[in-house]
Amino acid sequence: MQSEALSRLIAAFRRLPAVGQKSATRYAYAILDMADAEAEEFANAVLTAKAVIHFCKECGNYTDTEVCEHCRTADKSVICVVKEPRDILAFEKMGGYNGLYHVLGGSLDFQKGITAENLRIKELLTRLDGVQEVIIALDPDVSGEMTAVYLSQILKPLGIKVTRLAHGIPMGSEIEYADEITLMRALSDRKTI
Amino acid sequence: MQSEALSRLIAAFRRLPAVGQKSATRYAYAILDMADAEAEEFANAVLTAKAVIHFCKECGNYTDTEVCEHCRTADKSVICVVKEPRDILAFEKMGGYNGLYHVLGGSLDFQKGITAENLRIKELLTRLDGVQEVIIALDPDVSGEMTAVYLSQILKPLGIKVTRLAHGIPMGSEIEYADEITLMRALSDRKTI
Repeated sequence: MQSEALSRLIAAFRRLPAVGQKSATRYAYAILDMADAEAEEFANAVLTAKAVIHFCKECGNYTDTEVCEHCRTADKSVICVVKEPRDILAFEKMGGYNGLYHVLGGSLDFQKGITAENLRIKELLTRLDGVQEVIIALDPDVSGEMTAVYLSQILKPLGIKVTRLAHGIPMGSEIEYADEITLMRALSDRKTI
Repeated sequence: MQSEALSRLIAAFRRLPAVGQKSATRYAYAILDMADAEAEEFANAVLTAKAVIHFCKECGNYTDTEVCEHCRTADKSVICVVKEPRDILAFEKMGGYNGLYHVLGGSLDFQKGITAENLRIKELLTRLDGVQEVIIALDPDVSGEMTAVYLSQILKPLGIKVTRLAHGIPMGSEIEYADEITLMRALSDRKTI
């Protein structure tokens, strides 16, 4: 009964992260309800973003210039290594960090066949001139931890300080609800006050 | 720091219903992460849907033909009056209803300036040939109830049976959590078993 074009639009929305059939249908109807000009602007925003935005050839973040503005203006003595461009967003929202970023494009995962060759590690090694510290900000899972250890083994012999983000009880949460691994980490990393 | 094109894409997603800054950003990054062909397909699905889909000149539902398939094949002795095209989706998903639909395009709301003139009531009156029952399936709020009463006052004198959907405790819910108005409605509409 449903129009082919409508089914196709719903299918398009379903390819977005965490969008199920219900939300996709709701979004598709919202598009149909829009004025033509508004829907065109929507489609154009998608096409323009894809046409204009690419990876910064230095840090690997999304940018619309050859080298992103951040790479041009940041403090070049420190590099923060992240998994994906969207992780940089979290730092930028936080504010207060003014060093470089470096997008790895993933983390080591031998089960998924992701080896050091698939990550932007070579590119990281070309950016170490004048760098005193590499902060590893990968997700605290097996794959992230393994990648962190791997990177530190490469970087430490070069005389660069390698750090990782602190793990522990998240601010504003309750200790009662902390999982055991987080609690164990918070205990072993405890600080003198 | 953020690319103009990315901000514009996030703003486009924010115009979808119940999409906040966080989801819109996530969707925008998903578009950037897509292959070019996939993003083009996404944009084309939007443009094609807007170009091809319009209102059925009979029932007012979205369709890509002049008169929608449902209007051509349905049982023409009963019409179900709904507020918006998406309400028809719920009936179609339910299955088991084979009558006509009629999209009113809203419900009476004098505060918002929506009068009978703004609704597809004239169009409804031209479709009554052979119709024995009009089922009113408007939202059970003040505006929907008022519109239901208004329609029944027009339709009853024409010798057409006018019904509305039953109100009551939703299936699978707990009476404990029913709001007072629903509970009162369920009590006054109680049925002999």
